[in-house]
Amino acid sequence: MADAIHSMAVEEGLAMKVIVAKDKLVACTNDVMRAVSSKTTISILTGIKITAASGGLTLTGSDSDITIQAFIPTEENGIENIQIIKPGSIVLQARYFADIVKKLPDDTVTIEVDSRLMTRIQSGHSEFNLNGMDADEYPRLPVLREENTLSIRKDLLKQIIRQTVYAVSTSENRPILTGANWVFENKTLKCVATDSHRLARRTVTMDVEENHTITNLVIPGKSLNELGKILDDRDQDVVEMIATDNQVLFKTDHIQFYSRLLEGKYPETEGLIPNDVKTEVVLKTKDLLQAIDRASLLARDERNNLVKLKTVDQSSLEILSQSPEVGRVYENVPANKISGEELRISFSAKYMMDALNRIDSEELIIQFTGAMKPFILKPVDDPDLLMLILPVRTN
Amino acid sequence: MADAIHSMAVEEGLAMKVIVAKDKLVACTNDVMRAVSSKTTISILTGIKITAASGGLTLTGSDSDITIQAFIPTEENGIENIQIIKPGSIVLQARYFADIVKKLPDDTVTIEVDSRLMTRIQSGHSEFNLNGMDADEYPRLPVLREENTLSIRKDLLKQIIRQTVYAVSTSENRPILTGANWVFENKTLKCVATDSHRLARRTVTMDVEENHTITNLVIPGKSLNELGKILDDRDQDVVEMIATDNQVLFKTDHIQFYSRLLEGKYPETEGLIPNDVKTEVVLKTKDLLQAIDRASLLARDERNNLVKLKTVDQSSLEILSQSPEVGRVYENVPANKISGEELRISFSAKYMMDALNRIDSEELIIQFTGAMKPFILKPVDDPDLLMLILPVRTN
Repeated sequence: MADAIHSMAVEEGLAMKVIVAKDKLVACTNDVMRAVSSKTTISILTGIKITAASGGLTLTGSDSDITIQAFIPTEENGIENIQIIKPGSIVLQARYFADIVKKLPDDTVTIEVDSRLMTRIQSGHSEFNLNGMDADEYPRLPVLREENTLSIRKDLLKQIIRQTVYAVSTSENRPILTGANWVFENKTLKCVATDSHRLARRTVTMDVEENHTITNLVIPGKSLNELGKILDDRDQDVVEMIATDNQVLFKTDHIQFYSRLLEGKYPETEGLIPNDVKTEVVLKTKDLLQAIDRASLLARDERNNLVKLKTVDQSSLEILSQSPEVGRVYENVPANKISGEELRISFSAKYMMDALNRIDSEELIIQFTGAMKPFILKPVDDPDLLMLILPVRTN
Repeated sequence: MADAIHSMAVEEGLAMKVIVAKDKLVACTNDVMRAVSSKTTISILTGIKITAASGGLTLTGSDSDITIQAFIPTEENGIENIQIIKPGSIVLQARYFADIVKKLPDDTVTIEVDSRLMTRIQSGHSEFNLNGMDADEYPRLPVLREENTLSIRKDLLKQIIRQTVYAVSTSENRPILTGANWVFENKTLKCVATDSHRLARRTVTMDVEENHTITNLVIPGKSLNELGKILDDRDQDVVEMIATDNQVLFKTDHIQFYSRLLEGKYPETEGLIPNDVKTEVVLKTKDLLQAIDRASLLARDERNNLVKLKTVDQSSLEILSQSPEVGRVYENVPANKISGEELRISFSAKYMMDALNRIDSEELIIQFTGAMKPFILKPVDDPDLLMLILPVRTN
């Protein structure tokens, strides 16, 4: 029966046929799957679009906010990845396709589409016949002019995302705050995220021409998080960035990552950052993180997950947290330096840990301007990163 | 303030005080946590009982079906694990206690209970004060006479559990089938589990006296699964097994695992196992498992997750599965040997994979007695294991 279907396909005319290296197909499918949402209401977007052309195979996945395109070149470093027997295009159910290719038995996979969109996927002794969808129905990608691009190192881009996007808002009350604001001025890229209770700001000096299209963008936090997951940590290659009024594209060798941009004006945030420091503490990032982590154990069911901090004798910080039912915890964290006024302040343990987890430097500076004012966290050795947390009023 | 509380505890008289190695405390806490359920309606069972006596520290956790007791000896292999400063007992909120000890900063932990059950847990610069519960309220363990025990190697016990318990019923329609039946006769332990759609039977020959208390037990599948997780794979030590009418106890060096037994008579199952083989197939376990795994991808949303199998020319099996919406899959699995009648049969892919995943031998024998009769799976090199699956009627 399998053979019968096969020969029928051949007789009716092939719409597409390729033989492709399984490992490449699996890796690219995983990449584009990040854009596919099971919640989509647009039927064709439940699929992955597969396009075979003379240069190679392109996979596309999209949830209409994010679109990811991964490309497998026919040949790479002298190794043949793909044989294109008949160029063409098909859309296959993403969830099934991803699971199937992962489990195929052989190192190569043949994908063959007949004129009725029936798609045969064959590898070793295994043969799948899937009902395909018409690739012409798949949304077209926006065409972005590639004249004015901005280049950024992959590992740096990943770090920027990690150090800022955690602070975007998850509430749709002010949709603009669900995005991160990227502003390019005087050869400096400034990335800011805030949910109005905390803020993260990362600046990067860039050695580029000034005539690119990126000046002020608000990129959805979700898009940046997915982009961060796709970028390879070890890779120091550059990512090309191209933007229009409503789209941004990040390009690497084999991946094109499109995201829509948020509309509207991002609020001015520089005014939130205090500069009249009243108490300054220098201490080990890890010591503070672990102490807050333990102190938060008792308060984790509370809505605010609150901990109290006070300076002790200009030599250490005491962290206190309590839950009437469970008990109390005291942590003492030795400081390298405490200067200025004595201080008692309360804040969300979660916000503090979110920030501390993203400070890579061994020591950090905390600058307080009073118990009711936002305070600043900075790595001692990196002036380009600043994090801000609003305290919580307690009695 | 921390110090104030501390000295108050000392003044009012210590109820218990120990200093214990953190790694031992963490490991034992994790073990007893397996018995603690967040769903319990008995308040004291949300806690872990901690008892310090001259020989060491005992931790107890229970959901009233399963009780796990872990023991840390004061000294072990010449290394001091614990200093018992004041023997005593306390019950602490299990969830909090487990999270706290895991995150404590120092290698040793001091646990100190005052006369009002307030418990101070101190390690390095960290101090927790937890509201304790009265250990006298904690249920007493059943006392089992240790005269008649059965010894079984730890790795063997773990294998028995893995190869049978998957087949117990998860439905409370026939509660007795949620347990596995262990029968000891003629120096042979026979372990059977069935949910009436499939069955697993593992026999073990044991070189022991006949005068032990274990003759016919029905042990809850859930208990055996938790026991399996606690047993260390690499360890070839023996487990002592003791049973009464309603309790079974598994004892290792440091752990006592109690489970209630299911009441009622376990059904006779030997009659279900066919012995008139009409078709016999010998093939590679892994080949079949991977083919069924792929074939099940398309049918995974169906209730029965159905695949069809047929013999082809006495040389291979064809596996077919289909979903009207998604498509079809064909798998061809070469057989080492096929004898007897041609066969077409349908069955649950999940049941087949559950069984194949637990057959460690490279090759297996499948014995069919017709398309509507249960079929048998057996490793080629192990007569002690038998698995049975009922086919599904299709048109």
